[in-house]
Amino acid sequence: MSLLVVGSVAYDGIETPRGKVDRVLGGAGTYIALAASHFTKVRLIAVVGDDFDPEDEAILHRRNIDLEGLERVRGKTFYWKGVYSRDMNQRQTLATELNVFADFKPRIPASYRATPHILLGNIHPNLQAGVLRQAPDRQFVAGDTMNYWIERTPDELAQTIRQWDSILINDEEARQISGHDNLKSAAREIHAMGPRTVVVKRGEHGATLFRDDHCFIAPGYPLEDLVDPTGAGDAFAGGFTGYLASRGYRDAGESGIADLRRAVVFGSVMGSFCCEDFGVGGLRGLKQRRIEDRYQEFHDLTAH
Amino acid sequence: MSLLVVGSVAYDGIETPRGKVDRVLGGAGTYIALAASHFTKVRLIAVVGDDFDPEDEAILHRRNIDLEGLERVRGKTFYWKGVYSRDMNQRQTLATELNVFADFKPRIPASYRATPHILLGNIHPNLQAGVLRQAPDRQFVAGDTMNYWIERTPDELAQTIRQWDSILINDEEARQISGHDNLKSAAREIHAMGPRTVVVKRGEHGATLFRDDHCFIAPGYPLEDLVDPTGAGDAFAGGFTGYLASRGYRDAGESGIADLRRAVVFGSVMGSFCCEDFGVGGLRGLKQRRIEDRYQEFHDLTAH
Repeated sequence: MSLLVVGSVAYDGIETPRGKVDRVLGGAGTYIALAASHFTKVRLIAVVGDDFDPEDEAILHRRNIDLEGLERVRGKTFYWKGVYSRDMNQRQTLATELNVFADFKPRIPASYRATPHILLGNIHPNLQAGVLRQAPDRQFVAGDTMNYWIERTPDELAQTIRQWDSILINDEEARQISGHDNLKSAAREIHAMGPRTVVVKRGEHGATLFRDDHCFIAPGYPLEDLVDPTGAGDAFAGGFTGYLASRGYRDAGESGIADLRRAVVFGSVMGSFCCEDFGVGGLRGLKQRRIEDRYQEFHDLTAH
Repeated sequence: MSLLVVGSVAYDGIETPRGKVDRVLGGAGTYIALAASHFTKVRLIAVVGDDFDPEDEAILHRRNIDLEGLERVRGKTFYWKGVYSRDMNQRQTLATELNVFADFKPRIPASYRATPHILLGNIHPNLQAGVLRQAPDRQFVAGDTMNYWIERTPDELAQTIRQWDSILINDEEARQISGHDNLKSAAREIHAMGPRTVVVKRGEHGATLFRDDHCFIAPGYPLEDLVDPTGAGDAFAGGFTGYLASRGYRDAGESGIADLRRAVVFGSVMGSFCCEDFGVGGLRGLKQRRIEDRYQEFHDLTAH
């Protein structure tokens, strides 16, 4: 099975206590696609400017990611710059230059239309909805969003979320969108908005999956060498949906809980690798064997 | 096997977003003893004033806790009062009246001397050391401490910690005592100070056990009805050491990892119950069956 990914491809400037890089390949769509590509065929929809480096394109190409949906337009690629706090749990945005991303209107190429699984990265809810209108035969939709859309476009967000099978958000966003401090109550409220499966990403504290009365927790991986958390949540989303796509997952009936649990762990695995190097360094050269070994490590971390 | 517990017995005034109580039975020694009493015979060493209510003593007595070491002296029982933040992750102390606790010198009664397992609650490091001098035949020692002693009596603390098999502290304290932000590095540093087993309590985010190169994580229980977190860390310590005592645990060789893992989960179970009611309300009337059921729930939360 294959996965359609819609999200940003960007250049990032990143400063963490471990160092500093600038104009490195980034963007949610990039992290998602790279992570998911270890599990399934990925088809990317994104936009870049004419400054986009062929070497960066080659990074995606080498992971066998279908780039027919990668639009190239005149102008500069989306640029983001940020600096992390000492414990890397907070970050401050220093620059956001949307550039060609400002006019991004995702169009699904004909060759992508039959893709059964869709992951909607964190873009304007109306664009997310537009993607779904172009994919009537989809089998499973997961989506991400953020505080910016929760605050500014709550109605548009509610419209698109209603069509999602699964939502992936962080704990703060879950509280904000639901109005509940308690995560379990928040998940129930979000479920009522549409998505049957609610995955709350909790950074270094792991991830929690809520589905009906079911709850599953993957711990945060005890990383000793945290270099750069940029993209970890997106890598999680890529591992999660990539694994589900590889299983031909459908969100129907009672089945699938075992797949969802493993998907959360594979998401956590990919998020943990992402943090071990700057930018996409932790994901781009990853060997399948290391992914399997770390999956086993996750198992051993909690088995009793 | 039996467990000797040294710690405070107190009256607490507690305000949380869920309500307010005053002069209810509390203190680390109380929470530890009540939690541990579900697993093993507990012998308590503590001090109370002449205002200590026989009904509160009966709460301990009904759990079959040996109170020969509970000193009654003239004066008032230790009193603490605090108020919690909206999400209950922070608390502000409004009053600390040490009263009879100010002159507490733990003495081990002759009938307690053969107790193989010892849990040193969070008291002055010199008093903790004094307890160990009176218990030369002990088999296993776990201890707790806090930022107050880490800042004010680092040398005395280092002296006593050297003799512990296991230390139970929260994440902030682990960072403070080790000087490392990263928990894995912090645990390695603390290990070098003496305790082979380092258990880091992370509140709603669960608990992590480090031992040699081994790491085990119990998730935070997804409580929907958090009423009062007071004593949850102590209840954790009681469940942890109570279970180890019931297994006749010795910290020797490579064995015992399975016991330690289960002990962390039983600690988490007791901590979660503790939060479901004010004061010791969540622990005092607890049935064995509910403990076993919740242990299974913890298993199901992370199994994959």
